[in-house]
Amino acid sequence: MDRKRGIVPRKINGFRDIDPNLNHIKQNIIEAASKVYRLYGFEHWDTPAIEYAENLGKYMPDTDTIGQGVYSFRNPETEPVLMANGKELRDGSNKVVMDNHFLSLRYDLTAPLARHYAEETWQQSLRGQLTPDNAPLFRRFQFGPVYRFEAKLDPGRFREFWQLDFDTVGTKDVSADAEVCMVLSDALEAIGLKRGTYVVKVNNRKILKGLLHTLGIDTEEMEQDILRVVDKYDKIGIYGVKAELGKERKDESGAIITGLNLDQAIVDGIISFLEILSETDSNGFPLLEAKKDLSRASILQKLKLHLKDSEIGNEGIEELTKINGILTRLGYDEERVIFDPTLVRGMAYYTGPIFEVESKQSYKDEKGRERRVGSICGGGRYDGLVKNLNGVAVPATGASIGVDRLAELLMLTNQVPNKVQGPVFIAVFDDELMPEYQKIAAELRENNIATEIYYGSSKGMKKQFKYADKRNASLAIMLGSDEAERGVVSVKDLILGRQSFEIQDRDEWKKRIQSEVKREDLVSFIRKKLT
Amino acid sequence: MDRKRGIVPRKINGFRDIDPNLNHIKQNIIEAASKVYRLYGFEHWDTPAIEYAENLGKYMPDTDTIGQGVYSFRNPETEPVLMANGKELRDGSNKVVMDNHFLSLRYDLTAPLARHYAEETWQQSLRGQLTPDNAPLFRRFQFGPVYRFEAKLDPGRFREFWQLDFDTVGTKDVSADAEVCMVLSDALEAIGLKRGTYVVKVNNRKILKGLLHTLGIDTEEMEQDILRVVDKYDKIGIYGVKAELGKERKDESGAIITGLNLDQAIVDGIISFLEILSETDSNGFPLLEAKKDLSRASILQKLKLHLKDSEIGNEGIEELTKINGILTRLGYDEERVIFDPTLVRGMAYYTGPIFEVESKQSYKDEKGRERRVGSICGGGRYDGLVKNLNGVAVPATGASIGVDRLAELLMLTNQVPNKVQGPVFIAVFDDELMPEYQKIAAELRENNIATEIYYGSSKGMKKQFKYADKRNASLAIMLGSDEAERGVVSVKDLILGRQSFEIQDRDEWKKRIQSEVKREDLVSFIRKKLT
Repeated sequence: MDRKRGIVPRKINGFRDIDPNLNHIKQNIIEAASKVYRLYGFEHWDTPAIEYAENLGKYMPDTDTIGQGVYSFRNPETEPVLMANGKELRDGSNKVVMDNHFLSLRYDLTAPLARHYAEETWQQSLRGQLTPDNAPLFRRFQFGPVYRFEAKLDPGRFREFWQLDFDTVGTKDVSADAEVCMVLSDALEAIGLKRGTYVVKVNNRKILKGLLHTLGIDTEEMEQDILRVVDKYDKIGIYGVKAELGKERKDESGAIITGLNLDQAIVDGIISFLEILSETDSNGFPLLEAKKDLSRASILQKLKLHLKDSEIGNEGIEELTKINGILTRLGYDEERVIFDPTLVRGMAYYTGPIFEVESKQSYKDEKGRERRVGSICGGGRYDGLVKNLNGVAVPATGASIGVDRLAELLMLTNQVPNKVQGPVFIAVFDDELMPEYQKIAAELRENNIATEIYYGSSKGMKKQFKYADKRNASLAIMLGSDEAERGVVSVKDLILGRQSFEIQDRDEWKKRIQSEVKREDLVSFIRKKLT
Repeated sequence: MDRKRGIVPRKINGFRDIDPNLNHIKQNIIEAASKVYRLYGFEHWDTPAIEYAENLGKYMPDTDTIGQGVYSFRNPETEPVLMANGKELRDGSNKVVMDNHFLSLRYDLTAPLARHYAEETWQQSLRGQLTPDNAPLFRRFQFGPVYRFEAKLDPGRFREFWQLDFDTVGTKDVSADAEVCMVLSDALEAIGLKRGTYVVKVNNRKILKGLLHTLGIDTEEMEQDILRVVDKYDKIGIYGVKAELGKERKDESGAIITGLNLDQAIVDGIISFLEILSETDSNGFPLLEAKKDLSRASILQKLKLHLKDSEIGNEGIEELTKINGILTRLGYDEERVIFDPTLVRGMAYYTGPIFEVESKQSYKDEKGRERRVGSICGGGRYDGLVKNLNGVAVPATGASIGVDRLAELLMLTNQVPNKVQGPVFIAVFDDELMPEYQKIAAELRENNIATEIYYGSSKGMKKQFKYADKRNASLAIMLGSDEAERGVVSVKDLILGRQSFEIQDRDEWKKRIQSEVKREDLVSFIRKKLT
């Protein structure tokens, strides 16, 4: 054997081909959600899959270091280096400095949205005329694949996956945040999730900030550290949070996680906030189901008591109060949208209301254990995103549906057929009859019935029917020269044929799944069969 | 000013954002064509946007050179180097050789299809059990963006554009090629092209091969050189082809293109073939409209006379005869599908029937000149594509619709509305009334009427209506506190308002475009307005 590098046909690690069944579910999700997005007045925009790395905010100019988690490479095109004002950079001898700029595959759809918006308002911002208060309104939805290079790939995770975003840029109005909850709920129900099987959870970064202010935490760094621990609440429970805010936490494997070593008073303050504003099971893990006394109104009540001394906390409460008012007036009750003051969400750039949709449905994994899919949507208000590009804190809010996560949920909980219905299949018995097979196919297609003629090279019947089965064909049409002479066609019911039950009588069975039809009655026979 | 590199929000050169109007046209194209593809039994598969470069066939193993025209980069993940049998390559001390493999953005959807097919049949081919005759049948359609790095970018061309492919892999049956013509014609008409405005042109590489054989050309290289010249027939005309097959050709600018310097007998043979099998205008350029005497049957007749001594030529004629038989039987006449023996198509990998769809429609460019969009679809039989990956010449045929080209055609010829209808627009007069605006919006959305509430930060009426206009909104709903008190709502007809005609009487005009409606009649009033 030749011991050298060879070409092996395979996908890149972490990437996958999408089969027709999964594609069908994905397309349904995209269509149903897009329709709801449109109903709310969002428009369908698209941006490229690759962008200048610096525009995505994961690249530091003047270094060769590209942010982790992103696929980046040098542009094969050599271009001028630009200054912040858009003019070409020149060297000492007044020659334009050239470079092959770093390009990146987009890692989400929000960063490209920020680039689009900043590009559209670029002249205005260069003239110093763009402010948070006059920033033009822009509402768009977008769907498509995004790319993440995660060095360690967990099972079931992929490096290419689809998102389905909607955003309102240029709005400070908290009504737009209330709308995010409504859109998410409406979209998920349009996709097919039953009410009560999911819940939109809402919090406000200002409330978490307010809590920490009242406890005397006032550095950004400290705040982020604490939020990172609180974010693990549903994974490590209240005792875990308490331990990790204090000296150290021991995980299930016995490993020691160094804690933040906060003063007891601060730890107690955070823990009492969690205890008062969520309900836990006997092991200290938060319950997903909101009980009566954790209605949105009662949570607002409790928050007011807890955060009465914090200005920013009260601002957050006021915003949630307005959101609650709109949702309640429109009938979006706690079955659909709850307030969860313990919700953190990872992204550091959120500045106000934050959203997460959690599926309450569970499924049994291969070992029979009860599993939950968990978070299927996320979003929030990010008033600083465009700022990286043009220096203006343009206010914005929106959310994203994780298309692949949601598709997985629908499959795992058997809410979608696991196989798409295939076409009517025309077996090829005799090459001479090909024009007649084509005629039959054309007649069926005219009647909107998907029909496939077998074009495979191996014409054996066993192989043909194996293929029809793989395609999940509904009916098979069989026409040989003797049938053609007699003016008849045989039709086999492949759906019935695939059902397994005890065969009492072979002839009886055959009669049930196979029929001989007059050629002129074929189309109407098949139409009837398929309804 | 700080003279250093800055971040400028912009798209990569050659890339673009797709606005809602273009997206609408693109989505319609994809939906209509997909429906036809499904009717013929093709399934929707997807492959990743990036692949190992060597799998796309533009990368030579063991060198650092990446094929031109493709975006390629090193995988950040370090992986074992594999041998052709799939096993890990080891060095002298038996250590696995590691590398960061080259990855490429896909440049079409056919190369990834070949990778998918070769991967699925990999074990079978390793065991030597995969042959052209037993290769499994696989029929799929796919759509999505592809990426080309063209160093010199012509105006109106892009480096990211969409294709919409359907292919049958594992078929030698020329019926599958006849089907390609039918699918293309049906799909284009489903998209909205009128019959007679486009034509599917069919040729067979075997016929061109046959012609060259009869003229004594028998090297692959010579053949490719000649076909490259013949491929320019519609651009340089018959005199241009003649000149370039001979000593040299002078182009419009006066530049000299060195010719192939073929013997006069060969040049005459090719030119007489073109003259007999196509019709030219007075300047020697081929006419697109097939006249009666260039019916498919008469072309087959002429080809038989011309190529009677070439075995491969006759094979090609036989295939076209079979294709003609099926098409004629099903009523696909010369208005839809013609034979064009002068058609070459660029791709070297085509081995049998080839297809191209040309739009006959023209439009006026900015200088008032008559322009044609030209080729909007292409395809053919490529029996060698999978061979690069697994050594087996699996037969395959298919075609691709150029989504962006077709969208451009529809826009340039005004076959689609140039602006998508926007939502009903609710102006915000009074923040206190926000819950009522939300209520109105919810009622309209329940009636399937897209509705948007203005969330912009600048609440001035001029700014609000400017935004409504930009969104191409249909109606505006205006509700202030005094109207709310009186239980009425004002509705302005923005579509009528945008129409310009002479205003005779300002009040009369205002009455025509603006109405006051009782709050309880609002939804039914708007429903009526919009139908």
